[in-house]
Amino acid sequence: MTGRYLEDFAVGQIFHSGPLPINEERIKTFATEFDPQPFHLDEKTARDTIFGGLVASGWHTAAITMRLLVESDLRPAGGIVGAGFDEFRWLRPVRPGDALRIEAEVVEVRPSRSRPDQGVLKVRTTTLNQRNEAVQVTVGNLVVPRYPKSSGQESTQE
Amino acid sequence: MTGRYLEDFAVGQIFHSGPLPINEERIKTFATEFDPQPFHLDEKTARDTIFGGLVASGWHTAAITMRLLVESDLRPAGGIVGAGFDEFRWLRPVRPGDALRIEAEVVEVRPSRSRPDQGVLKVRTTTLNQRNEAVQVTVGNLVVPRYPKSSGQESTQE
Repeated sequence: MTGRYLEDFAVGQIFHSGPLPINEERIKTFATEFDPQPFHLDEKTARDTIFGGLVASGWHTAAITMRLLVESDLRPAGGIVGAGFDEFRWLRPVRPGDALRIEAEVVEVRPSRSRPDQGVLKVRTTTLNQRNEAVQVTVGNLVVPRYPKSSGQESTQE
Repeated sequence: MTGRYLEDFAVGQIFHSGPLPINEERIKTFATEFDPQPFHLDEKTARDTIFGGLVASGWHTAAITMRLLVESDLRPAGGIVGAGFDEFRWLRPVRPGDALRIEAEVVEVRPSRSRPDQGVLKVRTTTLNQRNEAVQVTVGNLVVPRYPKSSGQESTQE
């Protein structure tokens, strides 16, 4: 797997993805498997709920965000491996016909103390719809490998 | 929709779900759509990655957790409507053949100041495998309706 190592990242870098449309049929099939609630399954029933109409499951939005992150120009060596989030919010519902894209900003680059071969990349990922409204914001921690060291050299920074 | 109102919840209540198995085929089809990375797609290639073998996408685990939450005895009136998370961590990989279940503990019940008809339920949801090892922990905030007030009565607590 090729890609960027920890040393290739710097605070303030922003990575992008193209837009991905989300349609009514896929909203319903995703929800049938993972989030079978009326506001994700049926337009008519959804009108009488807090959302006032059919909306995608937040987990569908989160999963699409992951897809967009994989397709973006972020490309850490070793893949996108998440440990968890400092922040995770859904800001607006996603509705049939919306198209989502992401902006991923590097907010911290931190070598690991216990694992000299890797570090943590903290990334704020904003998922936007076709009106450039943020629908989801996360601040996540990715495990990213460091450049392999030349052998026989001891680091003094562990 | 029937279910529990904010007043029906109390700190310390724990809700459960039955187990749901996760198999290799579904791990791969989910990943193909949402998280197309080698460690989720191919057993052989996965051996040389950080996971040492095929693992489910964290988003697959998160989506299954949502399914288990919907099927659990939590059942808030108006459905499970999440605003976001205070905490979100993946603790262990999920592998083909694992079976997941959840324990959801109420950690806070808070009436809304701005919306007297609803409140926030803070829930710590632990997703466990068949060896009772936690694979995911989240602390999330759900929007839950309060019991409808009798008309003509003003609350002094808004």
